[in-house]
Amino acid sequence: MTPPSMTDQGRATRGRIVAAAAALIVERGAAGTSLDDVRAATDSSKSQLYHYFGDKHGLVQAVIDHQSAVVLGAQAQALDGVCDWRDLERWADSMVAMVERQRGRGGCPIGTLAAALADTDEQFRTALNDAFNSWREAIGGALARLRDSGLLAADADLEQLITTMLAAIQGGLLLAKTSRDSTQLRIALDGAIAQLRTHGIL
Amino acid sequence: MTPPSMTDQGRATRGRIVAAAAALIVERGAAGTSLDDVRAATDSSKSQLYHYFGDKHGLVQAVIDHQSAVVLGAQAQALDGVCDWRDLERWADSMVAMVERQRGRGGCPIGTLAAALADTDEQFRTALNDAFNSWREAIGGALARLRDSGLLAADADLEQLITTMLAAIQGGLLLAKTSRDSTQLRIALDGAIAQLRTHGIL
Repeated sequence: MTPPSMTDQGRATRGRIVAAAAALIVERGAAGTSLDDVRAATDSSKSQLYHYFGDKHGLVQAVIDHQSAVVLGAQAQALDGVCDWRDLERWADSMVAMVERQRGRGGCPIGTLAAALADTDEQFRTALNDAFNSWREAIGGALARLRDSGLLAADADLEQLITTMLAAIQGGLLLAKTSRDSTQLRIALDGAIAQLRTHGIL
Repeated sequence: MTPPSMTDQGRATRGRIVAAAAALIVERGAAGTSLDDVRAATDSSKSQLYHYFGDKHGLVQAVIDHQSAVVLGAQAQALDGVCDWRDLERWADSMVAMVERQRGRGGCPIGTLAAALADTDEQFRTALNDAFNSWREAIGGALARLRDSGLLAADADLEQLITTMLAAIQGGLLLAKTSRDSTQLRIALDGAIAQLRTHGIL
């Protein structure tokens, strides 16, 4: 969380450092990224890092918040527009297209942080779990609209279908990143949508 | 790979160091584990680590090989016994039970290494992709037996079903680890099996 008392310039500087630290952590992992690396990449001083983040733990927490906001912002926006099966397929297509643009690299920033940090730090785990829960809500909103417009059976278990979908996203992104091939994400998402459609009415 | 010229005692020492390094890396990640950490945990010397692994890269490669052998050994054995739907469900149950024993912690050692290393080192990525491919083969063997005994339709696309299953395993384990709750793995695996069953004959 950005302290509310910060000036606009302070917020901009802090945001620039967080974005650069997030990029380093995507590349090298949280444990592989030192405060000195972040200082060098952002041309900032030790006292600036201390002022904005306190210590490395505070910086990693800021990176988790940043990645959650970026990923969840994009996902919530894309899922908010889902009203029928074609929209849902377009949403899946856009994830596959993103992985293709990155030539299979990157995976999910939240998933990568969760894999590295969920077992090492309880505060980080909770923040990453909150991010997954926000993602679940966004998927749940889309599925509820499908249900309310009569495309998905009224008695479909949305919680289960949400979990199936989010697991397919995370598993598919990890397999795509490891194979450098978006096909495995494509298949995982198609599989989750096929399973949704077994509860479909139209 | 263990050098073939090594004595039995050498192999035992090397194996002990690799197992301890693997445990440290599960806990702290590869980037967060130094050669000094490994030396301290195994009461070994710098020259021993140099002799067996060359450098940290060689040690991480040995840990990848070790985790692949452990996970794939267990998975290949469990999947080799799968001849019908009940066997497949028992295999899924055993993964959920493992996560429950670990109280949700740990995730998949291969998946965690892949999330951290696939984008940072091409040799590691290839080794981890090989591990996933071996896992795919083991799942494929089980599905082929279901098909050959008439439980799965002859025209079922096994490659797609394998990917759906492995993505459900990886996504489900990551969500279980982040939520500290095996339920999300349970649901992801049940979803993948339900999808298999849509191609089922009995």
